[in-house]
Amino acid sequence: MKKKPLILVSNDDGIDAPGLFTLVKSLKKFARVSVVAPSIQQSAVGHAITVRTPLRVHEFHRDGKLFGYAVDGTPADSVKLAIRALLKEKPNLVVSGINDGLNTAVNVIYSGTVSAATEGTILGIPAIAISLETSRHPDFIVAAKVAAITAKYVCANGLPPDTILNINVPALPAKQIKGVKITRQGKSRWNDEFFQRKDPKNKDYYWLAGKMNIVDRDDDTDQVALKNGYVSISPIHFDLTHYEFLEEMREKWDGKLKLNL
Amino acid sequence: MKKKPLILVSNDDGIDAPGLFTLVKSLKKFARVSVVAPSIQQSAVGHAITVRTPLRVHEFHRDGKLFGYAVDGTPADSVKLAIRALLKEKPNLVVSGINDGLNTAVNVIYSGTVSAATEGTILGIPAIAISLETSRHPDFIVAAKVAAITAKYVCANGLPPDTILNINVPALPAKQIKGVKITRQGKSRWNDEFFQRKDPKNKDYYWLAGKMNIVDRDDDTDQVALKNGYVSISPIHFDLTHYEFLEEMREKWDGKLKLNL
Repeated sequence: MKKKPLILVSNDDGIDAPGLFTLVKSLKKFARVSVVAPSIQQSAVGHAITVRTPLRVHEFHRDGKLFGYAVDGTPADSVKLAIRALLKEKPNLVVSGINDGLNTAVNVIYSGTVSAATEGTILGIPAIAISLETSRHPDFIVAAKVAAITAKYVCANGLPPDTILNINVPALPAKQIKGVKITRQGKSRWNDEFFQRKDPKNKDYYWLAGKMNIVDRDDDTDQVALKNGYVSISPIHFDLTHYEFLEEMREKWDGKLKLNL
Repeated sequence: MKKKPLILVSNDDGIDAPGLFTLVKSLKKFARVSVVAPSIQQSAVGHAITVRTPLRVHEFHRDGKLFGYAVDGTPADSVKLAIRALLKEKPNLVVSGINDGLNTAVNVIYSGTVSAATEGTILGIPAIAISLETSRHPDFIVAAKVAAITAKYVCANGLPPDTILNINVPALPAKQIKGVKITRQGKSRWNDEFFQRKDPKNKDYYWLAGKMNIVDRDDDTDQVALKNGYVSISPIHFDLTHYEFLEEMREKWDGKLKLNL
């Protein structure tokens, strides 16, 4: 009998997050699962790694049994450390989530959930990030099923090198979900505002607020697919090159940007 | 007379870093400059933003004069706060750097320097990130000139929306620099290793080490341009969509990924 695939699970909400627990239960139906995740909540850490301080690792127990390893670091630290130092076997897949909140459009670049998945692909392992719109209907079970179905498919069919599937699930009961849309990353972004306040010593502080400014209209974007009741799957990668403008620069800038050093 | 452009300068090495100081001096020759940068060193923070705690801002003086504002946060926090709360006028350009060390290939996604620039473009302002290979010849003056020449060019000619110029300067005396290459982000990545050690209480800790594994050979990549003695300018953006695989998914995956929820 063929050995079951090994899946490394991580997240950015912390190893004790309900989204991670539900995900692990769902993946265990067809795979072996190792959990290595941040010991505490790490939202909006982007693709941070810890280079100036050492990393500590603790066993994390759940219901009296070893559930996984908690890392005093970021999501990317957790995945890097798992693959390079903690696991005895290279995993077949990294799954990060289920995040408590969407990771769509410009949010993707701030996302710790996506960064854990990205770290998997940097180390040569296909990866999935999965997030649930939790504002209305925070039930992780539907998203966990979506994760398992996709994970099984990826274990069987693979992904191209350096590719992450960024999955977002709408906050709807299973029956109301219309299906899957393969999407691109939208361009909606935060309309940031800062509240300026005074502390008890009368000193200023600033607190980030503001709301998402939905500018996407095309139904091939993550943002619109979700709004229309679909699970959104966007293939993303970490090649940030702006190829279109690269061509333009080569044609137009060449020779004009003189370095008189 | 036309008003001089306003440039917002930030970095990830902290407001007291020599690279930032040299950059500001160089930009002041043709522009007005506002400095808003992290109060302390923030390397490898990726595109982190602070959402769970308030941000504090302090005036930072240099040679008895107000030099800029130090933010107790990340590079992205600094730029966001500057544009949305601190500056009275929207800057014409954001310049982040000069980083003490290269930001090429896969390193770009971990880079606080690049994230400060990215935050500028998210808020609709063209942006430049500039980094110097400091391992051999840590002289920021050449890189500061490169930054000023490019910044002046961008102030005059603009950039497409959502575009960052990621500039890397080789550690060479001015005369040995061969010119400018317009490049794409390379695929070289870290060959991570962790040192596992015992602390005085005999508990394990892990420290990230390892070296860059240079796999790029094409001379249109950032990595190779630098090696050949050129300043590398890569246009990058934050659309992470893997368009090539997106097409393939739409053709091949459609209908195969059944959600039986």
